[in-house]
Order: sequence, then structure tokens, then C-alpha cells
Amino acid sequence: MLFHVRMDVQIPATLDPGARADLVAREKAYAQQLQRAGKWPHLWRIAGEYANFSVFDVESNDELHDVLSALPLFPYLDITVTALARHPSKVE
Amino acid sequence: MLFHVRMDVQIPATLDPGARADLVAREKAYAQQLQRAGKWPHLWRIAGEYANFSVFDVESNDELHDVLSALPLFPYLDITVTALARHPSKVE
Amino acid sequence: MLFHVRMDVQIPATLDPGARADLVAREKAYAQQLQRAGKWPHLWRIAGEYANFSVFDVESNDELHDVLSALPLFPYLDITVTALARHPSKVE
Amino acid sequence: MLFHVRMDVQIPATLDPGARADLVAREKAYAQQLQRAGKWPHLWRIAGEYANFSVFDVESNDELHDVLSALPLFPYLDITVTALARHPSKVE
Amino acid sequence: MLFHVRMDVQIPATLDPGARADLVAREKAYAQQLQRAGKWPHLWRIAGEYANFSVFDVESNDELHDVLSALPLFPYLDITVTALARHPSKVE
Amino acid sequence: MLFHVRMDVQIPATLDPGARADLVAREKAYAQQLQRAGKWPHLWRIAGEYANFSVFDVESNDELHDVLSALPLFPYLDITVTALARHPSKVE
Amino acid sequence: MLFHVRMDVQIPATLDPGARADLVAREKAYAQQLQRAGKWPHLWRIAGEYANFSVFDVESNDELHDVLSALPLFPYLDITVTALARHPSKVE
Amino acid sequence: MLFHVRMDVQIPATLDPGARADLVAREKAYAQQLQRAGKWPHLWRIAGEYANFSVFDVESNDELHDVLSALPLFPYLDITVTALARHPSKVE
Amino acid sequence: MLFHVRMDVQIPATLDPGARADLVAREKAYAQQLQRAGKWPHLWRIAGEYANFSVFDVESNDELHDVLSALPLFPYLDITVTALARHPSKVE
Amino acid sequence: MLFHVRMDVQIPATLDPGARADLVAREKAYAQQLQRAGKWPHLWRIAGEYANFSVFDVESNDELHDVLSALPLFPYLDITVTALARHPSKVE
Repeated sequence: MLFHVRMDVQIPATLDPGARADLVAREKAYAQQLQRAGKWPHLWRIAGEYANFSVFDVESNDELHDVLSALPLFPYLDITVTALARHPSKVE
Repeated sequence: MLFHVRMDVQIPATLDPGARADLVAREKAYAQQLQRAGKWPHLWRIAGEYANFSVFDVESNDELHDVLSALPLFPYLDITVTALARHPSKVE
Repeated sequence: MLFHVRMDVQIPATLDPGARADLVAREKAYAQQLQRAGKWPHLWRIAGEYANFSVFDVESNDELHDVLSALPLFPYLDITVTALARHPSKVE
Repeated sequence: MLFHVRMDVQIPATLDPGARADLVAREKAYAQQLQRAGKWPHLWRIAGEYANFSVFDVESNDELHDVLSALPLFPYLDITVTALARHPSKVE
Repeated sequence: MLFHVRMDVQIPATLDPGARADLVAREKAYAQQLQRAGKWPHLWRIAGEYANFSVFDVESNDELHDVLSALPLFPYLDITVTALARHPSKVE
Repeated sequence: MLFHVRMDVQIPATLDPGARADLVAREKAYAQQLQRAGKWPHLWRIAGEYANFSVFDVESNDELHDVLSALPLFPYLDITVTALARHPSKVE
Repeated sequence: MLFHVRMDVQIPATLDPGARADLVAREKAYAQQLQRAGKWPHLWRIAGEYANFSVFDVESNDELHDVLSALPLFPYLDITVTALARHPSKVE
Repeated sequence: MLFHVRMDVQIPATLDPGARADLVAREKAYAQQLQRAGKWPHLWRIAGEYANFSVFDVESNDELHDVLSALPLFPYLDITVTALARHPSKVE
Repeated sequence: MLFHVRMDVQIPATLDPGARADLVAREKAYAQQLQRAGKWPHLWRIAGEYANFSVFDVESNDELHDVLSALPLFPYLDITVTALARHPSKVE
Repeated sequence: MLFHVRMDVQIPATLDPGARADLVAREKAYAQQLQRAGKWPHLWRIAGEYANFSVFDVESNDELHDVLSALPLFPYLDITVTALARHPSKVE
């Protein structure tokens, strides 16, 4: 089941640079693990912004929330979720 | 080059049902032709809305505008374009 | 799987009164059929508005879209869907 | 009498972790006490957000405000209240 | 129980002048009947706009919705309801 | 002359608790003095929010600004003023 | 007493050209009469828009509403009123 | 003196096709005459929208308004003007 | 050439009171110097807000920006500029 | 390929003045280098704001993001990108 997700990142300027670098590294590792597991099939940077458009493929709303709230950057993310359905004009 | 596009459809209630059906049929044919040509790789219905999220793959901004403004439903679409870039955490 | 839905109804003033009455009657019948089937467990009027807050219980995003787009009033509804997850403080 | 409530939680990053954990624990205990008392019949997490949709069942607007402003997290909540009425299509 | 209500009036320009005058006259009669019954204790025109701020005094959310949806102008009103509670600094 | 005023209170979390308590106490005393003087005839808490809807009765715009900007909490208030006029349907 | 007013004009395209010309002519005559009477001391066109910023000088909120609602174009105006006070840095 | 202008075009669907074609042709001719006169140095289509970003070079605000309000499509344009100044980092 | 300007003042609560008082005093002196020079013909307080509506009379957009960015409070101002043109109904 | 970019600068008041001056100097040098390279053909200050409208000329969305995210002020910029296409009325 697919969900469209927009994430805007706002890491406070007061965060310690080392803590920030660690957070960003853990975010990347976790993002790649989810991609390899097929849970996060699409991930694009929004040009000019510290933000992304993503598509997640999960079993349920609960799994979606678990996956998103486990993001190391979650406390600094502004997230908008949109449920996706099959489009009748989509070529299979 | 990828662009994220949101389209909201607002066909006026006053449009003749035959004209409307014709328009929707031509839209579908054109959408499928673009998908087969690789120009429109992603197309999802937004659940509960007469709207879609799409990703287009084109050579330039001009090609993007040409493709979108040639949509049979173009006069009835509210379109928002977002330029996409490669995300540094994307698994290739 | 639960989804929160807000529906705002905007039936055009130009619609024929008979057609309107028929539409509203079919909407009610369909809404009650979905409630009895357990698909639409909550339905509240927003006080002072021709609008409702609802909760739907469906198997997937696709089923949600099918159910909503089959509403007789669908062409006149402004719909906002929000995916719901289990709350950790919820008493079972 | 039912009220729909959306709560967005914004705990300042500068709050001491111990104080934060204590606050969240007291919030949970209070939320569960209100649920058991029948005052807070519905509570859902909004997928991907530190936010919830809730329905409260109270005697009056004053009781609603008393219940909400007594939430341990109240100073960090952005709350929107909507008065609910019986929907004419609701199956009893 | 008090509710704050903002009403913005938008009567379509296409409405027949006679029908409009009749509607406005019935709205006034109904508004005055509700005021005399103590249900609508405050009613002010917003300067420069075809709009009002009102306070209603009713037994429940259901009564509020019944009273508002019975306004002759209801189909042409954009209504926003806000539940009011006693203010701790209010002098009794 | 009547003005409708909405006040949203946002006291910074960093304010010293003693200073805050003193501020709130002075606000209450000042609010009650203005009510007794007939300048602040209506004051309601917005249910679920640290905010109020008020009506002020003053001689002029200048007096309104003097009264509002003298509120002890003024630096922490987000204020919206709306000029009120007599409504033609108001029962005297 | 001064009020700042923004007016956005939206005359429906369906209005008969003669009726429109008559309306605009009566609006101009009325605007000039109010200026000569000292009620409308400032009137500027917003560059690029069919809109104006104005300042009115009236005795009361009621007079302001009477003056504005008597504008021949009133049914086609979107009006925003802001109460003005003396600025402490104003050179007299 | 430079002004940034965004124009969104909304030609009513009810306009006669011949009248529409004539309007669009006159708009193009006028736009090209202004470009040749150096008054309209930049004109770009916003990709995916019936809208443009433009820069005008005029002597005054009055000239800007005269030029814009003389656009044949002016009644169907939603225009936003932004005054531009020299940027201190601009390479001359 | 006239420009309408709205300024909203947001001085951070953390600013040293002496620095703040100095800033406000310099702002006032500068504002009065500009008024005496005929550059700032209108200045009104927005009732209930730490904000003003102003009209500036300058030679060019560049002069406007120079004048505004030299305001001692400039770093704490949220400024909105609107270019004004002569109104055809204005009595000279 | 052209992109329209709006940048709003918000440097935190807490940034050390020396660090700030260094940042602004590096931003200017980088901006001028990009202009000389033909990547940043237009750059205008928005009158009255610490903001600019720019046009970038790049090979791709990826290059645009690389160029923008390398701006020394990038962490303090609120950036909005709009893809531009050739306008059919543009005089070549």
C-alpha cells in the first residue's frame, strides 16, 4: 500500500555539530536499509530545499507511522502524508 | 530530468456530458501514450480526491510545459510543478 | 485500517431541486449501507456547516478511494483524507 | 455532547529530558483516566505526525475547556476544537 | 452554553430580486424571534462587510446546529462556530 | 463604540515563573478594572485554547489602542481588532 | 476617526455593459462627493490591480459601515477595514 | 525602474471562442509592442501553468498601472506586483 | 512616487532593555527626520498591534529600499510594500 | 534551462557578528562568481525586504540544487524554485 510523504527538515542551529553529523549519518543508514527492504521505493530531493518527496510501501497505516516515527531526524521533520490509490489511467 | 506534478481536476458541471466523456477518454489515451514513451513514469490517484501525484521525465522545462499544456484536460487542471533532484541517501 | 475524512458539501444552486433531492436521498441510503457493513463506523455533522467528520474502516487505500468516489454526492464534495494509526495512550 | 479535537504536540527541544519524560508519562496516565471515565471516547494518532485526532464527550463547553487545559502537555499543544452534532444519515 | 459564530453572507447575483427580498425578510424575522427567545443574545455587523459576529446561547451542539441550519439564508452563509467557555478573569 | 478583539496569548517558556505569575495577576486585575469601568463588556475563553474573544466599548480608535497596549501581557499577545456596527436585525 | 480600507473590485463578467458603466459612473460620483465632504481623505489605486487602498475619516464605526455599504459597487467589493490610531512617532 | 509581475490568466469558459481568440491575439501583439519599446524586458512562462513571470521597466508606478491595465486580457488576469531594487551583490 | 508600506515589529524578548530603548529612540528620530523631509507623508498605528501602515514618497524603488533598510528597527521588521498609482476617482 | 528562485534571508539574531559578516562576504563572492560564469543571469533585491528574486541558468535540476545548496547562506534561506519555459509571446 503506497503513501506519498513530504518531509521538510529543520534541524535547530543550536544543535551540536557532532550530534548533528551523527544524526544525519544514522538517518542515511536507516533510509538505505528501508529502501533495500522495499519499504521506501522512491526518494527525491526537492530542488533548492532541505526537503524530500518520498513514496513508502507498507502493510498498514500503523506500519507507516512506525517507520516514519523511527526516523532519527523525526523530531526535526515536518511530515505530510497522503494516501495513494491506483490511477485508472495507469499503464500496468 | 524529473519533475513532481500535482494535478487537481475541476471540470465545470455545465460541460455537456458527451463532451466531458470525450475529453476524459482523450486524456486517458494521451496519458497512456506518454507513459509508454517513458515521459510519465509515475501516476497515482490521491485517495478521496479527483487529483493525482505524478512524476514526469523530460529533457527540459520547455518539454515539460509542452507535455502538460497538451493534456486534453489542461484547461480544467490546477497544476503544481516541483523540480526534483537526486537525493544523497538514495540507493542506486 | 482507519482513515479520518472531512467532507464539505457544495451542491451548485443551479442544480434542479428534484435532481438534488434524489441525490441527497441516494447519498443517505449509500451512507447507511456502508455503516451497516462496518465500513463507515463514525459520522458526525460539523455544527453550523454542511460538512461532516467521518472515520472509515477499510482494507486498503484503494478500497477507501473506491468507497469515497462512489458517493452519489462525490462530484460536489471537497474531501480531505488523513491516515490514522493506533495511539500509544489508547486504552484497549 | 461531542467535540472533535485536533492536538499538535510541540515540546521545545530545550526541555530537560527527565522533565519531558515525566510530562509524557503524566499525559498518558491522565489520558487513560479520562478514557476510562468515558470523557475521551476516541483517540487516534495522525500517521507520520506527533499529533492526534480525538473526540471528547462532556457536559458543556466549560467542562471541555477544564479537561483540555488540565492536560499535562497543554502548554505545548496547539489545539483546535470543533463542535459535533448528530448527522441525519447516522445509523443509530 | 455559549457559542461564538461568524457568518459571511454570499447571496448569488443570479437570485431573483423578489426571492432575495423575501429571503432577507424571513431571515430578519427569524433572527428577531431567536433573539426574543434568548437564543441569540449578541448580534453585530462587521463594519464594511456583509457579515456578522454573533453569540448563541443553546442547550447543546445539536440545538446549535438546528438553529443555524434553519436560518433562511443558511444555503448562502459561510459559518464558523467557536465554543466559548467562562473566562477566569470575567467579572460576574 | 464597539470593537471585537481576539487575543492569543503566547508567553515564552523561558520567562521566569515568578515573573510570569506576577504578569498574569496584573493582567487579571487590569482586565477586571476595565470591566468594572464598562470598557470591556464581554470576555470569553475560547474552549481548548489560551485565547479569548472580547468586546470593548470605547470612545475612539485611539482609546482602544491605549487600552490594549496597556495590557500587562501585551508583548505576548497576538491581537486582531474588528470594528463592529449596529446590525439591522438586532432587537433593541 | 480614521479607518484604513482595502477594496478589491470584482464585477461579474455577466453584468450588462450598460449597467456596469452606470454603476461605475455612480461609484465615481459618490466617491468624489465623499472626498469633498472630507469623509474619504485618501484614495490610491493599487498598481496592477482593480483595487484601492483608502483612508476614511468618520465619526463612528456605524458611520463607516453606512458610508461603505452605500457604495454603488458594494455588492461587488471585497472590503477589509483596519482601525487606525495616532502613531507616537508621527510629526504633527 | 523595474517591477516584477506575476500574471495568472483565467479566461472564463463561457467566453465565445472567437472573442477569446481575438483577445489572445491582441494580447500577444500588445505584449510584443511593449517588449520592442523596452518596457517589458523579461517574460517567462511558468512551466505547467497558464501564467507568467515578467519584469517591466517603467518611469513610475503610474506608468506601470497604465501599461498593465491596458493589457487586453487585464479583466481576466490575477496580477501581483513587486517593486525591485538594485541588489548589492549584482555584477554590473 | 508613492508606496504603501505595512511594518510589523517583532523585537526579540531576549534583547537587552537598554539596547532596545536605544533602538526605539533612534527609530523615532529617524522616522521624524524622514517625515520632515517629506519622504514619509503618512504614518498610522494599527489599533491593537505593534504595527503601522505608512505611505512613502520617494524618487524610485532604490530610494525606497535605501530608506527602509536604514530603519534602525529594520532587522526586526516584517515589511510589505505595495506600489500606489493615481486613482481615477481621486479629487485633486 | 531557466529557473526562477525567490530567496528570503533569515540569519538568526544569535549568530556572532564576525561569523555573520564572514558569511555575508562569502555569499557575495560566490554570487558574483556564479554571475560571471553565466549561471545566475538575474538578481534583484525585493524592495523593503531582506530577500531577492533571481533567475538561474543551469543544465539540470541536479545542477540547480548543487548551486543553491552550496550558497554560504543556504542554512538561513527560505527558497522557492519555479521552472520557467519559453513564453509564446516572447520577442526573440
